[in-house]
Amino acid sequence: MTGAESLVRTLIACGVDTCFANPGTSEMHFVGALDRVEEMRCVLALFEGVASGAADGYGRMAGKPASTLFHLGPGLGNAIANLHNARRANTPIVNIVGEHATWHRRYDPPLGSDIAGSAATQSCWVGTAESAGETAALAATAVAESQRAPGGISTLILPADSAWNEGGATLGPLPMPARKKVDDARVRQAARLLRQPGTALLLNGPMLVGAPLEICGRIAAATGAELLAPTQIPRMERGAGRVNVDRVPYVIESAQKRLEQVKTLVMVNATRPIAFFAYPGKKSTTTPEGCELFTLADPVEDGADAVARLVEALGCAKGKLNLEPLKLPEAPSGAITLPGIAAAIAACLPEHAIVVDESITSGRGLVPATRTSRPHDWITNTGGAIGFAMPVAIGAAVACPGRKVLCLEGDGSGMYTLQALWTMARERLDIVTVVFANRTYEILKGEYRNVGAGNPGRRALDLLEIGRPALDWVALAKAQGVEASRATTLDAFVQQLAVGFRERGPRVIELAMGG
Amino acid sequence: MTGAESLVRTLIACGVDTCFANPGTSEMHFVGALDRVEEMRCVLALFEGVASGAADGYGRMAGKPASTLFHLGPGLGNAIANLHNARRANTPIVNIVGEHATWHRRYDPPLGSDIAGSAATQSCWVGTAESAGETAALAATAVAESQRAPGGISTLILPADSAWNEGGATLGPLPMPARKKVDDARVRQAARLLRQPGTALLLNGPMLVGAPLEICGRIAAATGAELLAPTQIPRMERGAGRVNVDRVPYVIESAQKRLEQVKTLVMVNATRPIAFFAYPGKKSTTTPEGCELFTLADPVEDGADAVARLVEALGCAKGKLNLEPLKLPEAPSGAITLPGIAAAIAACLPEHAIVVDESITSGRGLVPATRTSRPHDWITNTGGAIGFAMPVAIGAAVACPGRKVLCLEGDGSGMYTLQALWTMARERLDIVTVVFANRTYEILKGEYRNVGAGNPGRRALDLLEIGRPALDWVALAKAQGVEASRATTLDAFVQQLAVGFRERGPRVIELAMGG
Repeated sequence: MTGAESLVRTLIACGVDTCFANPGTSEMHFVGALDRVEEMRCVLALFEGVASGAADGYGRMAGKPASTLFHLGPGLGNAIANLHNARRANTPIVNIVGEHATWHRRYDPPLGSDIAGSAATQSCWVGTAESAGETAALAATAVAESQRAPGGISTLILPADSAWNEGGATLGPLPMPARKKVDDARVRQAARLLRQPGTALLLNGPMLVGAPLEICGRIAAATGAELLAPTQIPRMERGAGRVNVDRVPYVIESAQKRLEQVKTLVMVNATRPIAFFAYPGKKSTTTPEGCELFTLADPVEDGADAVARLVEALGCAKGKLNLEPLKLPEAPSGAITLPGIAAAIAACLPEHAIVVDESITSGRGLVPATRTSRPHDWITNTGGAIGFAMPVAIGAAVACPGRKVLCLEGDGSGMYTLQALWTMARERLDIVTVVFANRTYEILKGEYRNVGAGNPGRRALDLLEIGRPALDWVALAKAQGVEASRATTLDAFVQQLAVGFRERGPRVIELAMGG
Repeated sequence: MTGAESLVRTLIACGVDTCFANPGTSEMHFVGALDRVEEMRCVLALFEGVASGAADGYGRMAGKPASTLFHLGPGLGNAIANLHNARRANTPIVNIVGEHATWHRRYDPPLGSDIAGSAATQSCWVGTAESAGETAALAATAVAESQRAPGGISTLILPADSAWNEGGATLGPLPMPARKKVDDARVRQAARLLRQPGTALLLNGPMLVGAPLEICGRIAAATGAELLAPTQIPRMERGAGRVNVDRVPYVIESAQKRLEQVKTLVMVNATRPIAFFAYPGKKSTTTPEGCELFTLADPVEDGADAVARLVEALGCAKGKLNLEPLKLPEAPSGAITLPGIAAAIAACLPEHAIVVDESITSGRGLVPATRTSRPHDWITNTGGAIGFAMPVAIGAAVACPGRKVLCLEGDGSGMYTLQALWTMARERLDIVTVVFANRTYEILKGEYRNVGAGNPGRRALDLLEIGRPALDWVALAKAQGVEASRATTLDAFVQQLAVGFRERGPRVIELAMGG
């Protein structure tokens, strides 16, 4: 068996059966192995940032890693931005990066570069298979390391001769160490703190879905503690029938205001709230002076176990649970406004939809509006590298074929990875993408003032405008095989959303924001 | 003066007056400084890989660095692939990468990452301005280091507070050390070798343009030595009235065959010829067994001075010079064929055009066909990171506003950086882009066999095809504000080329390759 085939078979044996790929010459044996190992689903992307974002979306929804396949250092380079977001989401991913044959590296060929150095900036584990024989063991290690709490990116570098030489084997999964449980003293202390007024729970990661979320809901109902989450979250279950958790706002003043009554913050799989950016004369932290920060479980520890013990300690395991009612707004009509957009989405969102949110400034009213919509998952950009939503939507759709994905994309951010549309068409993925076409880097106009640069002059403003020339998103989508339409009124938007949610397959709605 | 303004003013004082930018929050003060320093031309890109490629094209044609402007680690990540090509071309570039404020870094904010580690994989110099006061000195150093022979990438990391704080200054250029001259013994030895039969000169970098190229032409005419260049070159002057230099072919067997009669290879600013990739059972080097390799000047040394002394030593400084005649083929007609495409371009290419070649398999007949075309420059992908041509064409057009740029782009490679079209439209750049729409990663089909993977099966082949769905390049261009047309015959191609070369501004021709 070649090293390449041993790699593919070992990935399958370890539960990794999906690969988001953009291969080149050095990866041809991996590609060839796909003909012999049919269990591996391979999804082609025209740009590596689409593949890495898809792996992020897949990992967040499937709860297990996908593999990627990249072509040497530059291929990995193109993947870095969305790997950065995945790292911040603690998404498990197994990168496979092809490399020159071991004996060829010493000649410093044109495509040669420091792959391991580049991978190290985003990976929790990096290995190079120096022979076909060691490929399987490294692959199994890569899978295990990606799943080590809290989850991360493994990068396996595969020289071409390690792929094409014989001597490979198939290995199964390595034993996974359990998450570290927190000690009883911490649970007791958390219970004490939660009995005091002014205590809030800050939740992240596994706390925002399934049983842990429900348990936190019982704790909140019994103690009166608020449930909060950071601005950036990997994934949250919300809507009707779910426990509501409020995310701390992005804008620093709003975040500080939101937290100003919090006397004690009990953090579960979360870290202390900080500002996304620093601003002149402002603090980096958003909790008020004197607020006590208490870590019940850090992101590596077993938060699910900790809250299960906490709810027992508080004696409310069978207590009251406040779930959101189903309450939909009227479908709006008339001219496009931000509240109107939010109402349209809140009204139309189908049950079990997955919302991938990179709407930036255009979507700021969306979260409260959808609080009582049909139950859904909400995914955000955890790392701030834009060009996130469309690739992540691909991965979510591949992981959850029965569910509708709603991808909310700014026109500025969408342009970083617009090649994602082609993969959506090729795989006939069930994704409705709304492009908020305001024709400006709107967020930067606010940030320009916030960082104390004053009012932008003519030349500065010119660098924040992307409407000259205007981008035609309907044409960009159709040119890549995706159905598309433009909405210039809320009525049209509602109608096009309804079509998109009713029919299967990818669709783009360009929302003309009066630009 | 703020650190940001001091940076922009110092760049200008050091001769860097062009910036290819994709800014974010942490770069707003740099953007603001543009309103106060009008000498800096700032060109906006919608994706960082466009900006880095543009800086590469600019540096190759202008012979001095442009600056870039990127948003933290993910912004730099998106730029890496085209920085890799620039590094392999020894193009001088000054990257400016925004970073979190110095005091904010310790909180490990979501957008934080190891910028210096990422930059180190491509840069010859990396520095971080820890205060506004040190920004100017670091900027002057960055410019100087980018121009140190043979040329390279400097990366200056600028924390937000170093940009917005007062205390900056304006500094002028640092003294530039001259290139190291080679000793007389090497010149004498090269002269001896060139008097023997079977000696060839391998030229790269500065040897392929201007006076050094002409000098090498005289040496060749006097000694009978062949003039060769690597497959990948930063820039070459060629066509009618120029000295012809043959590039070693890409395909390893063709390269070995091309070099098999060479007994001695005298290298000037070039390194030994090697295969682009390794293949099972094949050598990495392409020179024949027993071929003597002699370095007259390595890439860091002063090759121009060395050949000037060599031509004197050979006594042929005023000798014969074989220049290419102007000889144009008939404009072809009928169905699209590779020789027909080559003839069309050879016939139509305007005087002093700059050809940026990423035509990959579709362009393999182009080089011989254009040998006697009107004089032009030829630019190739030196690093093999695809998505190179359209961004580099932008930089070449900005550097040389009076010249027509012909961008030859594969459909597969073009999709990596298609956002380049928007910048072409926005800046009304004089670029004709021909997209070779064969709807497949054609080169990979050959490489699949070459690496010994046999014939691709159904699933493997599926990963090499990009025609499902088909990409509509005319629509992709028009959606970004660029005029575009499709050619399905050679007659149409010739006619559309003629229009593109006659009129000013950007234009795309999608060449339907029978896909």
